[in-house]
Amino acid sequence: MTDSTSPTAAADLTLEEKASLTSGADFWTTKAIERAGIPSIFVTDGPHGVRKQVGSTDHLGIAESVPATCFPPAVGLGSSFDPELAERVGVALGVESAIEDVAVLLGPGVNIKRSPLCGRNFEYFSEDPIVAGVLGAALVRGIQSQGVGTSLKHFAANNQETDRMRVSSDIDPRPLREIYLRAFQRVVEDAQPWTVMCSYNRINGVYASEDPWLLTQVLRDEWGFEGLVVSDWGAVNDRVAALAAGLDLEMPASGGVTDAQLVAAVQDGSVPEATLDVAAARILDLVGKAQVRPAAPGPLDVDAHHALAREAAGRSIVLLKNDDAVLPLSRDARIAVIGEFARTPRYQGAGSSLINPTRLDAALDEIRALATGEVVFAPGFTLGGSGDADADVDALRAEAVAAAAAAEVAVVFLGLPARDESEGYDREHIDLPVEQLAVVDAVRAVNPRTVVVLSHGGAVALPFASEVPAILDGWLLGQAGGGATADVLYGVVNPSAKLTETIPLRLSDNPSFGNFPGELGHVRYGEGILVGYRAYDARSQDVAFPFGHGLSYTTFAYGQVAASETADGDIEVRVPVTNTGSVAGREVVQVYTSLASSIVQRAPRELKAFANVALEPGETREVVLLVRRADLAYWDVRVDQWIVESGEYTVEAAASSRDIRSTATLAVAGDAVVLPLTMNSSIGEVLAHPVAGPLVAQAFEQLTETLGGAASALMPDDEAMQKMMGAFPIGRIAGFPGMPIDRAMVEGLLAAANAPQH
Amino acid sequence: MTDSTSPTAAADLTLEEKASLTSGADFWTTKAIERAGIPSIFVTDGPHGVRKQVGSTDHLGIAESVPATCFPPAVGLGSSFDPELAERVGVALGVESAIEDVAVLLGPGVNIKRSPLCGRNFEYFSEDPIVAGVLGAALVRGIQSQGVGTSLKHFAANNQETDRMRVSSDIDPRPLREIYLRAFQRVVEDAQPWTVMCSYNRINGVYASEDPWLLTQVLRDEWGFEGLVVSDWGAVNDRVAALAAGLDLEMPASGGVTDAQLVAAVQDGSVPEATLDVAAARILDLVGKAQVRPAAPGPLDVDAHHALAREAAGRSIVLLKNDDAVLPLSRDARIAVIGEFARTPRYQGAGSSLINPTRLDAALDEIRALATGEVVFAPGFTLGGSGDADADVDALRAEAVAAAAAAEVAVVFLGLPARDESEGYDREHIDLPVEQLAVVDAVRAVNPRTVVVLSHGGAVALPFASEVPAILDGWLLGQAGGGATADVLYGVVNPSAKLTETIPLRLSDNPSFGNFPGELGHVRYGEGILVGYRAYDARSQDVAFPFGHGLSYTTFAYGQVAASETADGDIEVRVPVTNTGSVAGREVVQVYTSLASSIVQRAPRELKAFANVALEPGETREVVLLVRRADLAYWDVRVDQWIVESGEYTVEAAASSRDIRSTATLAVAGDAVVLPLTMNSSIGEVLAHPVAGPLVAQAFEQLTETLGGAASALMPDDEAMQKMMGAFPIGRIAGFPGMPIDRAMVEGLLAAANAPQH
Repeated sequence: MTDSTSPTAAADLTLEEKASLTSGADFWTTKAIERAGIPSIFVTDGPHGVRKQVGSTDHLGIAESVPATCFPPAVGLGSSFDPELAERVGVALGVESAIEDVAVLLGPGVNIKRSPLCGRNFEYFSEDPIVAGVLGAALVRGIQSQGVGTSLKHFAANNQETDRMRVSSDIDPRPLREIYLRAFQRVVEDAQPWTVMCSYNRINGVYASEDPWLLTQVLRDEWGFEGLVVSDWGAVNDRVAALAAGLDLEMPASGGVTDAQLVAAVQDGSVPEATLDVAAARILDLVGKAQVRPAAPGPLDVDAHHALAREAAGRSIVLLKNDDAVLPLSRDARIAVIGEFARTPRYQGAGSSLINPTRLDAALDEIRALATGEVVFAPGFTLGGSGDADADVDALRAEAVAAAAAAEVAVVFLGLPARDESEGYDREHIDLPVEQLAVVDAVRAVNPRTVVVLSHGGAVALPFASEVPAILDGWLLGQAGGGATADVLYGVVNPSAKLTETIPLRLSDNPSFGNFPGELGHVRYGEGILVGYRAYDARSQDVAFPFGHGLSYTTFAYGQVAASETADGDIEVRVPVTNTGSVAGREVVQVYTSLASSIVQRAPRELKAFANVALEPGETREVVLLVRRADLAYWDVRVDQWIVESGEYTVEAAASSRDIRSTATLAVAGDAVVLPLTMNSSIGEVLAHPVAGPLVAQAFEQLTETLGGAASALMPDDEAMQKMMGAFPIGRIAGFPGMPIDRAMVEGLLAAANAPQH
Repeated sequence: MTDSTSPTAAADLTLEEKASLTSGADFWTTKAIERAGIPSIFVTDGPHGVRKQVGSTDHLGIAESVPATCFPPAVGLGSSFDPELAERVGVALGVESAIEDVAVLLGPGVNIKRSPLCGRNFEYFSEDPIVAGVLGAALVRGIQSQGVGTSLKHFAANNQETDRMRVSSDIDPRPLREIYLRAFQRVVEDAQPWTVMCSYNRINGVYASEDPWLLTQVLRDEWGFEGLVVSDWGAVNDRVAALAAGLDLEMPASGGVTDAQLVAAVQDGSVPEATLDVAAARILDLVGKAQVRPAAPGPLDVDAHHALAREAAGRSIVLLKNDDAVLPLSRDARIAVIGEFARTPRYQGAGSSLINPTRLDAALDEIRALATGEVVFAPGFTLGGSGDADADVDALRAEAVAAAAAAEVAVVFLGLPARDESEGYDREHIDLPVEQLAVVDAVRAVNPRTVVVLSHGGAVALPFASEVPAILDGWLLGQAGGGATADVLYGVVNPSAKLTETIPLRLSDNPSFGNFPGELGHVRYGEGILVGYRAYDARSQDVAFPFGHGLSYTTFAYGQVAASETADGDIEVRVPVTNTGSVAGREVVQVYTSLASSIVQRAPRELKAFANVALEPGETREVVLLVRRADLAYWDVRVDQWIVESGEYTVEAAASSRDIRSTATLAVAGDAVVLPLTMNSSIGEVLAHPVAGPLVAQAFEQLTETLGGAASALMPDDEAMQKMMGAFPIGRIAGFPGMPIDRAMVEGLLAAANAPQH
């Protein structure tokens, strides 16, 4: 054992030394304590590449960074629905981090895409917590396999950029637990990230950085998190409250100011020294883990990682539409490539995750490399937006139309300019620039064989969707996206990605509309659990393309799905899937469940498992998926617990959330919820109670008789009267004049009902 | 002065006597104290008639009642958009109450129709608080003009029947103030009801019956309510807490149990005796008011009140559609009257408001009375629903089709059976019975001149709306609705009512969908301020018929609207309106406002005033309406106050919420909101501050320069960087390493900014 593997214990440090550990030395490093042999470690932004700042670290952290492979951001990689691929990307990220001596790569981000407007959606995986949780856990596993830590972020309920440093995300318990925390829970339980990064915002009025419920009760006590909690950069509002809540490491440096506050708080007894000891120990533990990292695997293999980035990008492109098999293109087709994005790729989002790529493929070059036929390029529009002169716009469009008219196929690259989406602010609409929409309209008018290729971080409206035969949605694909796009266009890669978020017809269809981004310091998550496809399905709304949708150059047939309970109480789902086309391909098989008899509102279907299966033409495979029993649960606000309800669950095997291929049902025995009867229990609840019900039945019969005759005067029928009376609290009716039951009787009844059963 | 006008003061009573006053003697009366000469008074259910129970009052209050005129319930009367008419109905209700020696008629109900599913919507006026407030105040004025009290109910946020005794209406401050409390506020401020009735439910977790914020701070301290607060029958959960909160009178009797609790609470000091004194004094005041009522005006003039009920009903019928002037009918037309409702009227809702009518008109009889041509009747369906045998259904439909085929016009009476909507439970869908829909489809197939007449309390889906030329929506019309319907069908009355609620295409379009009726004791009002047309407009959703819509047998042209500020700061709106048709008619002129520049979310338009104007053919009148300045305000959660924003307000004169006829704008000088700067003020807020802005501008310029170069590395452009940085709290950025501002500088800045200005 070396020194670094037996780090100094917190007990060996002075109060001031322990406090000093709990905030950064500068922008990116923790503080060393030379006397005690405690080194500093370096953490840096990610997560789809390593953004290690060049030169001085004592800066706002937005200077240029060393070149690193820019893999597809989460919005792209998530679309692969492939945790194995994500884990391989994670391994590569770990390798690059190790080479740069980065102890912790700050990611992944698993926040839920509540609104397409969130400026940082490109850093997140999905509108669904299972997708975000499974992909996030895979990335963590991959990175940490290289002895490099991760930081699961932004914990929690940070679903917008507007007023992000202060806004209170006002969320009811069920959506908070079932939607917004669930992906975090999955990653913590499955992959134990070394660190969790608290977010800037407040949750129900309390800053995430100083919320003991969030940082200790939920994260550690309930989920078993073993690592440390680091603040997002500048997220600490009150350092003393934050420490007490479970925020171990404040970043970046505070100039010693908050360290001194902690020393003072311990000295005046407002925080026990043991609390500081725990935080210091966690930091020492992290420093210790960083010291045992295997030696860096030598200089970066730029080619190999670029190849992986291309593979990942190819697996991230969603084929939204392909009428008349316009795609794949023939190599010898005469094509017009239109759109500035073909030459100037939009491949990642702005802000702290912006990577300085080792290389950058342009789709135009890569198309030319694969094509044998003529390839004509016309930029069609500039990326300057409406600031450019009108004359240019017209000339550019005319040139594009001429090129399209002369080609067999027009491939039009559209997208959002970089300024439209970024960390730090949200969009106000989901429209593509009007100049671009005008180009695609003009092009398809002269060439019906028009293929649209999209680059953007957040969902955009696609008003041309029914007018063009083929659409490839690349979202953001990283540095090798240009090559990957060419691969898919020419069928070198058969597309297999699927949508991790619904593409709505209009922004106002989105369930957060009207409640995003809030105002005056608060945003109400008024749509509750009905987020993304859960809402569109509940409302039977038309959408442009549904969650989980994505086509292939081949086709897949599903056989009958079967569901059975395992010894652990999970649900094993088996469904045979056949590649019924003529080329090899991958299918993302999705399993949704529902429970029509639920006592709480449920979405019509919720994704619970998915599998990514490669099939040769004609091949059939029985795909086996596991739905975890825990994922069937709802959060019960009466008992503050996850509860699996008894009932007949519907299990659907599906190619998308709106392409259900086969359905099974399975009876599940649920958890017991025992609630004591009280004076405020309704007559209906009392009648349904195993002990009290029989005792009160006679009195209630008498009551019904008493009221029955009278009911004909006021209520439509006896059933209506019973419905109304069934909702009356038993204690209130007992207080009424002329009732056949009185308070003493009810008290006796409650005592009998609530007595321990033998 | 008689004894009854100088009632005993609370100070003259013993503790036990005062406590005894604070709960009922039985179901309908307060307690007398003979020793002190305090009589008992009688209160009873309303509000669209007097439901005075026959015989013993010591009963659950659902026995048969004495005959009384059944005026149109609020759902009908509200559609008149005519406070003068409502006041006349109120006078009649007061007269009938006085004749029956009723001291307080329990109504009106001004709860907002949040969802069409609410089983008690027929007792409420509108989805809009101004409509509910104006009509509610008119009814109160009318009733109280006769020396009879009212009880404004159900206070507050009682917008569903499901679990109504316990459910917590979880509402954010703005919708609570701007939507759900606003109608109550209007009625209290304009008409001072003698009593306010607290509702059963909880609001944000606190029972309305024991909420000091609701019953004292808002109701009395803010709105100036001078009367007493009575509980809904059985709404008291904790009598001691309720008294302390401001609940004066518990109803019905508690058998003395809660009186004793109050005595004990005063004796043990947990409630000051002065609190009990206040409640007792309010009850004595009410008893006193009841004693000075003028002598009852003699026996009920059944004919005169029935005639008023017919007039009111005629003014309550909404002509939704009238293609090709199918209506009015010629007296000599050969018509088929179809539908059981023509013979068996559905004219009021079930529950506590159910009136035993003095008479009951059936539309079929009244049509026959007016018609000179042949009138054939076929019931078409029974009111038994799907319980009836299939054979009957088919035969009934066939008979109806035969009748329709032989007639010039088919008039089909459809509606909701009584059991579908009632106090005590909510609907689960908004569909008419399938048997009825089948009848209308079959009838219109053989006779394109099909007129549909609707009877129902809550909104229903109208899948046949585009298939029939004319629709009369009668909602519920009271005992003379049959005659009024005949009047409108034959043009004796020219319809002038308008919709007080949107008729959606589908239930799932309603903004409360997904958040109604809640679960496990809570219902989240997640749609916030976007209730009713506010939401449909914000989302640009198609609707079947919009809020404020209603046709006439004549047409109206609007001239240019003009808006100007009055000396009081209100907005006077003037718009010339011309009857451009050939018959006399009434138009409901609506004024909506909006403020595009608002710092908070606003609905695209909000109704602020309306006028009901009668015009002869060719007549033009300048309609003058007043928009109160107070009604322009939003509730600001930062300062807990109503704030009128400065800005250019749009003022629309409209024939419906989607038929805007003329628009003006008016600059309004708003209220100042002064917020102190804090460490958590954003850089943007600091820069915008009149004192701090100039002081910090230079430092911020330096910061921008520092970051400017770096920005090119991470952010799309300088503007994006400034957007991101502008949202940073100044105290946080000051803590960052390498910043040109530090904490001491910021503290100085805040002190300067927050110093009192001279």
